Amino acid sequence: MRGSREILAPGATIGILGGGQLARMMGHAAARLGLNVHIYSPVADCPAAQIANLLITGEYDDAESIIKFASDCDVVTYEFENVPAVTAKAAASEAPLRPNARALDVAQDRLTEKSFLQAQLGIDVAGFEDIDNVFTLRRALKRLGYPGVLKTRRLGYDGKGQVIIRSEPDIDAAWEKLGGDTLPENALILEAFIPFTREISIIAARGLDGSCKAYPLTENTHENHILHTSLAPAPRDNGEAQKIAFKILDALDYVGVIGVEFFEMKTGKLLVNEIAPRVHNSGHWTQNGGCIDQFEQHIRAVAGWPLGSTVPNCRVKMTNLIGEAVNQWPALALQANTHIHLYGKKEVRAGRKMGHINQTS
Amino acid sequence: MRGSREILAPGATIGILGGGQLARMMGHAAARLGLNVHIYSPVADCPAAQIANLLITGEYDDAESIIKFASDCDVVTYEFENVPAVTAKAAASEAPLRPNARALDVAQDRLTEKSFLQAQLGIDVAGFEDIDNVFTLRRALKRLGYPGVLKTRRLGYDGKGQVIIRSEPDIDAAWEKLGGDTLPENALILEAFIPFTREISIIAARGLDGSCKAYPLTENTHENHILHTSLAPAPRDNGEAQKIAFKILDALDYVGVIGVEFFEMKTGKLLVNEIAPRVHNSGHWTQNGGCIDQFEQHIRAVAGWPLGSTVPNCRVKMTNLIGEAVNQWPALALQANTHIHLYGKKEVRAGRKMGHINQTS
Repeated sequence: MRGSREILAPGATIGILGGGQLARMMGHAAARLGLNVHIYSPVADCPAAQIANLLITGEYDDAESIIKFASDCDVVTYEFENVPAVTAKAAASEAPLRPNARALDVAQDRLTEKSFLQAQLGIDVAGFEDIDNVFTLRRALKRLGYPGVLKTRRLGYDGKGQVIIRSEPDIDAAWEKLGGDTLPENALILEAFIPFTREISIIAARGLDGSCKAYPLTENTHENHILHTSLAPAPRDNGEAQKIAFKILDALDYVGVIGVEFFEMKTGKLLVNEIAPRVHNSGHWTQNGGCIDQFEQHIRAVAGWPLGSTVPNCRVKMTNLIGEAVNQWPALALQANTHIHLYGKKEVRAGRKMGHINQTS
Repeated sequence: MRGSREILAPGATIGILGGGQLARMMGHAAARLGLNVHIYSPVADCPAAQIANLLITGEYDDAESIIKFASDCDVVTYEFENVPAVTAKAAASEAPLRPNARALDVAQDRLTEKSFLQAQLGIDVAGFEDIDNVFTLRRALKRLGYPGVLKTRRLGYDGKGQVIIRSEPDIDAAWEKLGGDTLPENALILEAFIPFTREISIIAARGLDGSCKAYPLTENTHENHILHTSLAPAPRDNGEAQKIAFKILDALDYVGVIGVEFFEMKTGKLLVNEIAPRVHNSGHWTQNGGCIDQFEQHIRAVAGWPLGSTVPNCRVKMTNLIGEAVNQWPALALQANTHIHLYGKKEVRAGRKMGHINQTS
């Protein structure tokens, strides 16, 4: 193991599991600090490989390749929470894994996540029930009421792996849609549908020394279950979201950036929707906020550096460029306060995150 | 030739001659716009290669390699003005060369540069004389007066290739120091020593459509002839420097970013010291000024994109980290408004630019 609990000097190597846009932007930040970047991805010409020192191609469940990859790194981090447990374990045998395996464990299973938040930390979440079969689903809907949201416990993202049940006649179709009786046991969770007034998120970080910092609250809108815009600093912030984020960071002995998504109720009460143990799409605005951006913040944390300033000097509205929206780049390039960030993806596909813009004011 | 006078779409390839920190930061900017980056450098593990899609190693005078390199690019640009004429010609045979060969021609010879500025454009420069031999040097010093600065016409940078002559007894030593009788004909120039009150520079850009934009004036300090700090926007600016820069850009039918260095006299009069047909060290502050930075501006220009905003939203002080100064990074990382930019150079050497910081206020 090359890494330690010491600060990594320029010239050290950060290994990143995953080669998408989050790894690409972490890679840029790492290079800015003089750190080398090695990418592990099953895809050869992935966005991060284009800008990294080295790409190792391999499957995520190929422990031998992961071990070889990690053995050349001073620390290993990741851009997505669905790193298999075997992978995390293999990586951690060779280099410090930051954030740690516990963070992955909690974040990759909605039931574990919600139980951890509610039972262990006393943090409010939407009502939820473990779903074994269509009978427990019916019983759970009676308890939580309609509408309810049936979700896969694992691997859901951007609205994938979930379906709303508005009334009893929807139950069978919803059950079938998510795989129904073909699913393994304990694959689903039912969550109460939350009539929120705002969707907000907080991007926070915890350093190797246990110190925490958070960026200002971000207000988000979604389209087709995919993040569409983030506005920061959000118009109203009572500091509650930051407190919750720090509680989670400390409980997990976390190192790195975390994204915590909330539903805000009419009463102002916050429910945690989900946590992402990584840099987060709703934190992209930080790149043009005048502060240390979330990507550098994550790299600083996992490299043992002190956390950077999270205080922006302007307001930023981030808008994702999804699918064909990326073709607006010529018009966007003409706008004075618009910063364009594209991901180097060769193929435009519906629903695919191709880039984003940050508009400052 | 793949390129044209059209705007290059994301996915197109920018070729950069040179693999140092300027190419590295241009590469980051290009990637942000979804453009591919190919680097041509004689050095395998150069700063830019670490973050580029592709590195082609080859000598700058190897026309065959340059042609092969350029044939895969949609446009070719460069990070240094001493690209040999043969190289520029070879590259331009395969892809548009931006800025053009004329800009290189003017900038790489101090005599050509000063004649172009003064005779062709009527721009004030320090008095100068072409020096053939020690006799013309003596005569020139009588005309321009003491002190004078004897310089090589080509390949000087950071104070290399120049020596001050304070009085007549210095002449022979100065002549010998720069190579004296071993030099080819017409290798030297004598410039009047300018008792300036400020060293300032302007970073400007000209797009493919001929439109020009300039960043606010920058005030610079040097240590040991190497840029030490740049402060922008400079405290006083009457707009004269920008006018001069635009005049130069138009006269050269220039495409890309240019750096123009000035001496400001007690009277407020500006003398152009030199022009750099590329992104410039005194423009590094733009990375954290809230505007489109000079690296993206250059990429935008050479790719035919519209120029971005040059209006900062804060004041920035850039300080170079020269040689051992880079070892201050742990302390610098603790400062709230300090942005660190390191270049990935493995070896610390005295006088070597290892990185810079931008401090915002």
